Amino acid sequence: MNSKYKVLKFSSKKLEDIEDLISIEEPLEISIKFKESDNWITQNLSITMRTPGNDEDLVRGFLFNEQVVQNIKDIDSIKSFGDKVGQYNIQNKILATLNNAQNVNISKIKRDFLTNSSCGVCGKSSLDALEIIKKNKPDPSEPQITKDAIIQSPEILRKGQSEFSKTGGIHASGLFNSDGKLIELREDVGRHNALDKLIGCVLKNNQLNAKTQFITCSGRLNFELVQKVLMTNIGIMIGVGAPTSLAIDLANKFDMTLIGFVKRDSFNIYSNKERIIIKS
Amino acid sequence: MNSKYKVLKFSSKKLEDIEDLISIEEPLEISIKFKESDNWITQNLSITMRTPGNDEDLVRGFLFNEQVVQNIKDIDSIKSFGDKVGQYNIQNKILATLNNAQNVNISKIKRDFLTNSSCGVCGKSSLDALEIIKKNKPDPSEPQITKDAIIQSPEILRKGQSEFSKTGGIHASGLFNSDGKLIELREDVGRHNALDKLIGCVLKNNQLNAKTQFITCSGRLNFELVQKVLMTNIGIMIGVGAPTSLAIDLANKFDMTLIGFVKRDSFNIYSNKERIIIKS
Repeated sequence: MNSKYKVLKFSSKKLEDIEDLISIEEPLEISIKFKESDNWITQNLSITMRTPGNDEDLVRGFLFNEQVVQNIKDIDSIKSFGDKVGQYNIQNKILATLNNAQNVNISKIKRDFLTNSSCGVCGKSSLDALEIIKKNKPDPSEPQITKDAIIQSPEILRKGQSEFSKTGGIHASGLFNSDGKLIELREDVGRHNALDKLIGCVLKNNQLNAKTQFITCSGRLNFELVQKVLMTNIGIMIGVGAPTSLAIDLANKFDMTLIGFVKRDSFNIYSNKERIIIKS
Repeated sequence: MNSKYKVLKFSSKKLEDIEDLISIEEPLEISIKFKESDNWITQNLSITMRTPGNDEDLVRGFLFNEQVVQNIKDIDSIKSFGDKVGQYNIQNKILATLNNAQNVNISKIKRDFLTNSSCGVCGKSSLDALEIIKKNKPDPSEPQITKDAIIQSPEILRKGQSEFSKTGGIHASGLFNSDGKLIELREDVGRHNALDKLIGCVLKNNQLNAKTQFITCSGRLNFELVQKVLMTNIGIMIGVGAPTSLAIDLANKFDMTLIGFVKRDSFNIYSNKERIIIKS
């Protein structure tokens, strides 16, 4: 499932308005219903950020792979429910009813999964739910960065990584000054961990100055990564790969400049172009 | 942090024993300690699979980015603890003590985070903990697949993806017959979701036959992905990118053939080469 987004593409030394197809990312709240001592119990298990479509397959595979059920036949039915939400008009809640309770790993469920009764994100537009956690927006005019700083940052990040050249299998996040100078970087096999490590480090060292800095991440940009950067109030985020729909929506909502698909002489601007200086 | 692994590299039409550096992936159990009504409360928050190193930065960034604390100064101290475990002799538990309880988002903590008291993975070697969930091993001799089936599968997967060519930003997992024919594929912005969707689909349709099939995933291979495939008893797993240390360890322990870095005329075999036929 994908959706058309307006994108400003920099390529062949000029900017061009294009429409691009973006993979959709939306939360899905997975619950199960099962019988214990003659009582039906409903339990929230997980919230996953997924591309809508084949949601029943997703839940079936999740329950089997996470050993909630030993046999796929122990899932009696799977049904999407809840109001249709968000701009894609989809349901973001799904319930699996389990039979053969003797085969269901109830102790594992109780040990492993969340006990909260509602996530607060899936039931309404995901972005509305974020109002509560994000009161300030970055200054829409700061910082200003040049196209050269954008294009060079992934290469500077890669060269700064001590691990990537050795293993070829590790993500990185870097904090840059608006002139393109690398301030600090962190690496991890998990891209969210690399970003947490970076932000934790610069907070500790009091190096954060949202008005003059941007963050570049290896790989693709999703909701989770953009949300983490929003917490720092930094207004420009760059990814080497593609963003998801929710990453772009989130950036738009909170006046962040989101840039992706950075190559040697091109990149895409998904939001708030005002912070970018194109002339050489 | 990385470690040397013995790898069998297929390149220039021949196999070669090499040593390769692999990024380490290990679980980290994050807990916090805070005062509520004059009582100190310790709460497990999260288990993340991370590359060891800068663990304090990771926890600092995680607590700030997830809004457990509003200000980094509300974290009083961060300490690793627990026995040193696993082959890398590291501590996999970490505790942050919070002060200024009035600034700590206790209701959010209670709403959002796990209430289980121990994860069972971090306290001992991660692989030992998996004994309980994986009783059967795949047959070490089945299926047999050729180098051509390996090399072609990422391209077949990409061509079969309806979304990738449109957005360039979506993962896929595919189930293949041992002769290299694609049986089914699923896509998602989350690679774990793509794999859950695939396995859920083929379980429902009764298409699974571990003796004659393998699975190929776009991107890198980590602990979570290998664990999901192990549940199906399929013995061969292929990734386009690099595996983590724990992915390789897990494949070795459960007699799975793990293949990564698949390119037009080369790939790396990380475990159980017996299932691979190299001659053309």
